[in-house]
Amino acid sequence: MASLTGRDLICTQEWSRDELIKVLELAEKMQKKRFDKKFTKMLAHKTFFMFFYNPSVRTRQSFECAATELGGHAQFLEPKSMRLKTAKTAGETVEDAARVMSRYACGLGIRILEDKVSYYGEGDELLREYAKWSDIPIISMAHDKFHPCQGLADVMGLRRHLGKNLKGKKLLQVWGHGALSRSWCSVQESILICSRFGMDVTVAYPEGYDLDPAVIEQVRKNCRDNKAKFEITNDPRKGYEGAHVVYSRNWMTPHAYDKGEFDKQGEVEKALKYTEWICDAQKMKLTDDGLFTHPMPIDRGHEVTDEVASGPHSIIYDVAENRLHVQKAIMALTMEKL
Amino acid sequence: MASLTGRDLICTQEWSRDELIKVLELAEKMQKKRFDKKFTKMLAHKTFFMFFYNPSVRTRQSFECAATELGGHAQFLEPKSMRLKTAKTAGETVEDAARVMSRYACGLGIRILEDKVSYYGEGDELLREYAKWSDIPIISMAHDKFHPCQGLADVMGLRRHLGKNLKGKKLLQVWGHGALSRSWCSVQESILICSRFGMDVTVAYPEGYDLDPAVIEQVRKNCRDNKAKFEITNDPRKGYEGAHVVYSRNWMTPHAYDKGEFDKQGEVEKALKYTEWICDAQKMKLTDDGLFTHPMPIDRGHEVTDEVASGPHSIIYDVAENRLHVQKAIMALTMEKL
Amino acid sequence: MASLTGRDLICTQEWSRDELIKVLELAEKMQKKRFDKKFTKMLAHKTFFMFFYNPSVRTRQSFECAATELGGHAQFLEPKSMRLKTAKTAGETVEDAARVMSRYACGLGIRILEDKVSYYGEGDELLREYAKWSDIPIISMAHDKFHPCQGLADVMGLRRHLGKNLKGKKLLQVWGHGALSRSWCSVQESILICSRFGMDVTVAYPEGYDLDPAVIEQVRKNCRDNKAKFEITNDPRKGYEGAHVVYSRNWMTPHAYDKGEFDKQGEVEKALKYTEWICDAQKMKLTDDGLFTHPMPIDRGHEVTDEVASGPHSIIYDVAENRLHVQKAIMALTMEKL
Repeated sequence: MASLTGRDLICTQEWSRDELIKVLELAEKMQKKRFDKKFTKMLAHKTFFMFFYNPSVRTRQSFECAATELGGHAQFLEPKSMRLKTAKTAGETVEDAARVMSRYACGLGIRILEDKVSYYGEGDELLREYAKWSDIPIISMAHDKFHPCQGLADVMGLRRHLGKNLKGKKLLQVWGHGALSRSWCSVQESILICSRFGMDVTVAYPEGYDLDPAVIEQVRKNCRDNKAKFEITNDPRKGYEGAHVVYSRNWMTPHAYDKGEFDKQGEVEKALKYTEWICDAQKMKLTDDGLFTHPMPIDRGHEVTDEVASGPHSIIYDVAENRLHVQKAIMALTMEKL
Repeated sequence: MASLTGRDLICTQEWSRDELIKVLELAEKMQKKRFDKKFTKMLAHKTFFMFFYNPSVRTRQSFECAATELGGHAQFLEPKSMRLKTAKTAGETVEDAARVMSRYACGLGIRILEDKVSYYGEGDELLREYAKWSDIPIISMAHDKFHPCQGLADVMGLRRHLGKNLKGKKLLQVWGHGALSRSWCSVQESILICSRFGMDVTVAYPEGYDLDPAVIEQVRKNCRDNKAKFEITNDPRKGYEGAHVVYSRNWMTPHAYDKGEFDKQGEVEKALKYTEWICDAQKMKLTDDGLFTHPMPIDRGHEVTDEVASGPHSIIYDVAENRLHVQKAIMALTMEKL
Repeated sequence: MASLTGRDLICTQEWSRDELIKVLELAEKMQKKRFDKKFTKMLAHKTFFMFFYNPSVRTRQSFECAATELGGHAQFLEPKSMRLKTAKTAGETVEDAARVMSRYACGLGIRILEDKVSYYGEGDELLREYAKWSDIPIISMAHDKFHPCQGLADVMGLRRHLGKNLKGKKLLQVWGHGALSRSWCSVQESILICSRFGMDVTVAYPEGYDLDPAVIEQVRKNCRDNKAKFEITNDPRKGYEGAHVVYSRNWMTPHAYDKGEFDKQGEVEKALKYTEWICDAQKMKLTDDGLFTHPMPIDRGHEVTDEVASGPHSIIYDVAENRLHVQKAIMALTMEKL
């Protein structure tokens, strides 16, 4: 396997399975010996930039902790203070911004979600524009298409609770209702990475809540390559049957940008109606003693009941903790030798 | 004495006198050998979260410095970017937020003052809700009821300038006028902790500016336990007689929330009228060569004259510096072994 | 040479030429051995405060990196959360703020540009007020008059690309058009420091765009002292002849405050008209194989063409990188021994 030094991480699909396993194994070691000296010097005195086009709690906390625990420092930057060039305003090009940042830092994380872009995919394009001009790794901290760090944290949690061989285990990726209009990024990353690791995947959602067709096509291919099952259903209960892990989460419709910008209010109104789309104890009985997971923050009472979210099969806090460990591993592998 | 590891600090009254002395003695050592190696590794590579519902200068500066000097890092977080659940909005519960943060950090500081809550005591309740769900210490960085780090910094200053035995020394806690509507937190913490250390306490304020009756009751009890004097006066001069330390500070009335939310403007209008309530050189002559203190920022010309604030008996900068040392000591004692 | 410990840096003109060379030589060493142990402990566990009255990208990034690479930490502070006293509002005096900060930190950087002050020079006065009351060095991170760190980064770039002896080399400091109203600080610092190092200086701008007369007078004197040439022209091409370095940059007129506050819109309207004021390849042919430099962010297509900015003679990224190294050197020399 080639070195990961300098590699961007925009979607786990772009890394080989062996490379992802390398991240997971290092993350597992880092969890066991969190403050061991071999880890706390890896980014000694180095700087990781975090660009938050969208605010975040967990992502900010876990990335800044990760840099600190590796001996470095993560700078919290809000691009609103950057005078970037647009069609309408004078400002700096991404080329100039990225080239200068490459002189200062060992890596750049970017978070840009659906409400900060004018069409689906624009956030992904921005990350790739930064990647084009940067000499340092660009790490997605969640963008409109993908959320690779969440995907790796999910799989780290599944490996711990279901064993390292995930082949033949069934993931139910299920839509949840609520006053929300959440990104596709976490759920798309989840079905991409879980299908890479050989899991059977069922995606369940009300009619009208299709995900990105290109992602679905890739997941189908991943499943074929691994001789695993892939299924889509519009039934709120059926997918639970035999599932080993249930991942419930609200997401937006493919029509969110039809008005020319992200229509949060319209999405929220639609998403409140499907009240039967909640993960509850009754549905969980259909599973094969299934785990419950979610990338947090949870909309309790809508995406999932308190009983399930705080119940003995919930692995939400473990998965949230894993964000720290996988991000440390990613940073160490891509930035230590820069 | 049991270990302080993992202990919350919401009010000094909840810690034993011996525990408070342990903090003060460590803070005094840390002041003498500020960058000694035995201190600069105590929180090596660890993260302390700071939640600022209210902005602050001194508190932010001193806590972030404290973490840096102990080898760790303090993350500056503004909860406006947290989607916390409320009666009206979807969001995350304190349970979920606190449980995840316990996986990332070694401690959590929270600042929430009167204008961010809808009734007196709501801020205190929020801290205790975080404490209920967190595995890591919750430290008040000033809230609507108490300000334990300020109280400890005050006493550290008094021990330096008056000697370690404060028994029999008289504190005048006196209201000051001005275009302000300040919290009760610093003054309540001051009279609680000074009475714990055996000082005689006089509280002086214009009629209508009573503090929290439960706090006053506790201070009376502290004084009784220590055979010290306690007195309340509405005379702007009388309390100065024989005082060893004068602590002047504006504070709000008990009617600040009568309109259902914090009435800053009404409070400011009232507080401007009592122009005789200013600590000046003439009144200071009545004291027993008394020190002047204040938690800063000072409203010069209202709470105190320039002559007194910048005079030879003023210990304001020493007390401000002590914030750093006591906070380092608190963090070291409660978080080093986590 | 006396020690630089504790020295403020508000304008390079206030430091001796030998002191500036000491900074440059240390910066050059730090560039070569960026993470060498002799550098990474210089500010171990110490705090540098950064006050951003104006936001910034490059300055924030480079100062915070600088502190991290020296083993310390830079706190990012926005003075909007400081309750500073003004004619109209209760708040803290600069005396109180500065005296307390001197107890916590090893240095204080301040950035305050034209749109945050009500007359030219007010920012400079604020820095000097902080310097008056602080025991720690005050470092300009760009203010309405000067930008010493940029000036040092410029000269570091010229020393690398033109050799250490700059005597007899010609700088063209030329105005550029665009939808901007930029500060005088970078250009004034540039002509001051370049004339200190013996360069011939030509300043070129459209009529009505005079710089600060006192600065121009000082530059004339610097040139006289070094037997170098000084020239002002209102011709957009003439100054290019024989130049060894061209530094194009927009700047405001001396009438920017005529309405009693900074008139951004009026300035922008004026600055758009002079379309012939752009640094392009044709004009660069008149130079003596001249370098192109700019402090960034660049307004490409207005201040300079893409062809020149991204061409083989452009040293913009090197100069931007130098910000890091000179700031590390300044912090080390003024703060290490505090």
